[in-house]
Amino acid sequence: MESMVDLILHKREGGAFTRAQIDTWVRGAAQGTVPDYQLAALLMAICLRGMTAEETRDLTLSMAESGRMADLSGVGGVCVDKHSTGGVGDTTTLVLAPLVAACGGKVAKMSGRGLGHTGGTIDKLESIPGLRTGLSMEQFVGQVARIGCAVTAQSGDLAPADKALYALRDVTGTVDSLPLIVSSIMSKKIAAGCGAIVLDVKTGSGAILHRLEDSVDLARQMAEVGRLAGRPTSALVTGMDQPLGTHVGNALEVKEAIDVLAGRAGGRLLEVSLRLGAMMLTASGVFPAEAEARTALEAALADGRGLAKLREMIEAQGGDGRVCEDVSLLPRAARIVPVPSPADGYVVRMDTAALGMASQRLGAGRTRKEDAVDPAVGLVMAVELGQRVEAGAPLAYLHVGARGEEEAAALVRRAVGISPARAPVPPLVYAVVRPEGVERLA
Amino acid sequence: MESMVDLILHKREGGAFTRAQIDTWVRGAAQGTVPDYQLAALLMAICLRGMTAEETRDLTLSMAESGRMADLSGVGGVCVDKHSTGGVGDTTTLVLAPLVAACGGKVAKMSGRGLGHTGGTIDKLESIPGLRTGLSMEQFVGQVARIGCAVTAQSGDLAPADKALYALRDVTGTVDSLPLIVSSIMSKKIAAGCGAIVLDVKTGSGAILHRLEDSVDLARQMAEVGRLAGRPTSALVTGMDQPLGTHVGNALEVKEAIDVLAGRAGGRLLEVSLRLGAMMLTASGVFPAEAEARTALEAALADGRGLAKLREMIEAQGGDGRVCEDVSLLPRAARIVPVPSPADGYVVRMDTAALGMASQRLGAGRTRKEDAVDPAVGLVMAVELGQRVEAGAPLAYLHVGARGEEEAAALVRRAVGISPARAPVPPLVYAVVRPEGVERLA
Repeated sequence: MESMVDLILHKREGGAFTRAQIDTWVRGAAQGTVPDYQLAALLMAICLRGMTAEETRDLTLSMAESGRMADLSGVGGVCVDKHSTGGVGDTTTLVLAPLVAACGGKVAKMSGRGLGHTGGTIDKLESIPGLRTGLSMEQFVGQVARIGCAVTAQSGDLAPADKALYALRDVTGTVDSLPLIVSSIMSKKIAAGCGAIVLDVKTGSGAILHRLEDSVDLARQMAEVGRLAGRPTSALVTGMDQPLGTHVGNALEVKEAIDVLAGRAGGRLLEVSLRLGAMMLTASGVFPAEAEARTALEAALADGRGLAKLREMIEAQGGDGRVCEDVSLLPRAARIVPVPSPADGYVVRMDTAALGMASQRLGAGRTRKEDAVDPAVGLVMAVELGQRVEAGAPLAYLHVGARGEEEAAALVRRAVGISPARAPVPPLVYAVVRPEGVERLA
Repeated sequence: MESMVDLILHKREGGAFTRAQIDTWVRGAAQGTVPDYQLAALLMAICLRGMTAEETRDLTLSMAESGRMADLSGVGGVCVDKHSTGGVGDTTTLVLAPLVAACGGKVAKMSGRGLGHTGGTIDKLESIPGLRTGLSMEQFVGQVARIGCAVTAQSGDLAPADKALYALRDVTGTVDSLPLIVSSIMSKKIAAGCGAIVLDVKTGSGAILHRLEDSVDLARQMAEVGRLAGRPTSALVTGMDQPLGTHVGNALEVKEAIDVLAGRAGGRLLEVSLRLGAMMLTASGVFPAEAEARTALEAALADGRGLAKLREMIEAQGGDGRVCEDVSLLPRAARIVPVPSPADGYVVRMDTAALGMASQRLGAGRTRKEDAVDPAVGLVMAVELGQRVEAGAPLAYLHVGARGEEEAAALVRRAVGISPARAPVPPLVYAVVRPEGVERLA
């Protein structure tokens, strides 16, 4: 068998790996038998030499199979998973899990905690009093079978190779490599067991990939790997030029999801949710076409079935379902502080990552895995791109707890660009990637 | 200050480092404060992105200054160091240290132990009964001042950053990168304190770089870094298409050095020794031109002053100087076994690395740092490239101790290519690199 050094040299010289070669080092990564320094050298060689489509597929499958593969067959029907590559103010999962379930879909979602400037769905859910996110596989499957949706924290034994590689990538400057991103995301999705996968790939300054072409390529590659793995996968490519919703924070985003499901809020978050929801319902075969699925989703919103399903899901996981009717039961920050606009003008630019960071600094996010989050804090945007604002009028409201007010206010001020001249507002949805091809919308 | 991840990303994107940036991670490597996985990722990025001449110089100086810098000013006069990039049957140091000293040079040589298929000068010297190679700096400087030469084991506190990086390169597939090779060799030479440096850069199958152009480039870059560091450096580029001498092993190579100094042996080892010696004597200013220096070296050989100086050096380091007159006092192998030629024909090819490996398998070399070496074992070549050989006549004689006879014999048989048709014999010296430029000889 080839040594690890041989494998590193092979990639360093630009060679392609066979599945057997990939299995050698992926298994070593999962079992801890290949030292970190050899994995780090290999990851850098992959970053700079790339991988073929076949290698990326093999890497994804090898990583998925490096640990337990969840078995969702007990649910009955095609379960669908939805994943975002990391947005700010993006609470589509909390809108979609119940709304898609209300239309007959089976949403079995394993989710992560937030790290960096984007929030994690698990952290958001845990701001609901009493709610459990550590479901056993039996509880998880049973709940999806019974009520159509469940959101649980990702089990530690899924794709252990990804856990090892992801931790290393973060500290070795090897995060933004297409084959490594594709395999990291898709290995977890495949191991998590859903029969169909819908992705929201973000693009722009606040996203993992800044250039549109790279983001479309990422979406296309993930869809292709999903197809090859027998898990039909489609994707939206959406802009991260401003937060998706207006609320950024844990309880704040739960509140916004409830507001959307109650018909009190709309805008970009609703539009992306409806598009993703329609893709989820067609991908899992509940509706034959996205248009019909969208009509069904809109009906479930209008008659309150989506909100009722959210309450059902919260209660099934031990949470206080009354938050759906009375959002004041959610944790609330001690003080709400406006950040005034420094000038008259139009909002021409938002640094979404900086806005995520502002929320993090207030205590809503983590800088290290061990950090605890404050469920109540965050910020609510008062402006959006293209809007006119007067000097002194609020750009955003900070929901402040124990710390970070000054820093967060400064971040918000720097993040929002005001100009006397209007600028074009970037599109919300750039492309749809379906098994049959890429549809460019902008 | 930039984080280590920032520095890795900078090189990954093809950027050049400043001296301050290099100091950050080199100091981290020396002090063990930068984790191996980050160094490994950076080394791979350097392999694939390269370094400018300025970066290579800065890296070399930074590594040299990462530990103690030897002070040889007590010797009086310009000390000269000689270094080979790793040959088989290459015992030029044991010929040159005394011969150059006999002509008025000051040879202050810190040397290493062997690892892999090339032997280490320290291992060879230690086959001489009683000889000490662990001289203190005071003993080392005093001996060079008194008798003109000393060879001691490299002190552990010289260039500690190189020690950390070298160990990592070996296990991460990042050995053959020009800037990393240049800085590894030259940082140790600069820290070792000599005012002038002469290098023997090997090229061919048994060498660290296989292609002539790469080897010439390595020699040129090392000479340039030496110049920039104020240590005039020149280099020979010589072929590793067959062992330099006929003897491969520890005591065997000491015997061959004595044979050369006694006028009983010549050939390639003598020719390369005279060329390197002439460069050492001109580099350190003892002679104005290489031709005069060569005449002086030949005279010191002819009248026995070189051999007398070797005896003086051996005795100064506590060894039994009588070996110079009676080589039978050196350790001798239990058995001497010929490896017969399988066919009539011409010797058209030698795999030098495999011959080194054969000697290692007999016990002359190490596969791990902790291994002990057998001073007596090794092999003596009976043929050279271009020579005619009859079936059954010896290709080489194995000097066998406790182990490895079968394996070594098989390695020798595979290493020597016999053909019915003559093939051209490759040149011995390909190029000379001097401060004033590169002279191509072949």
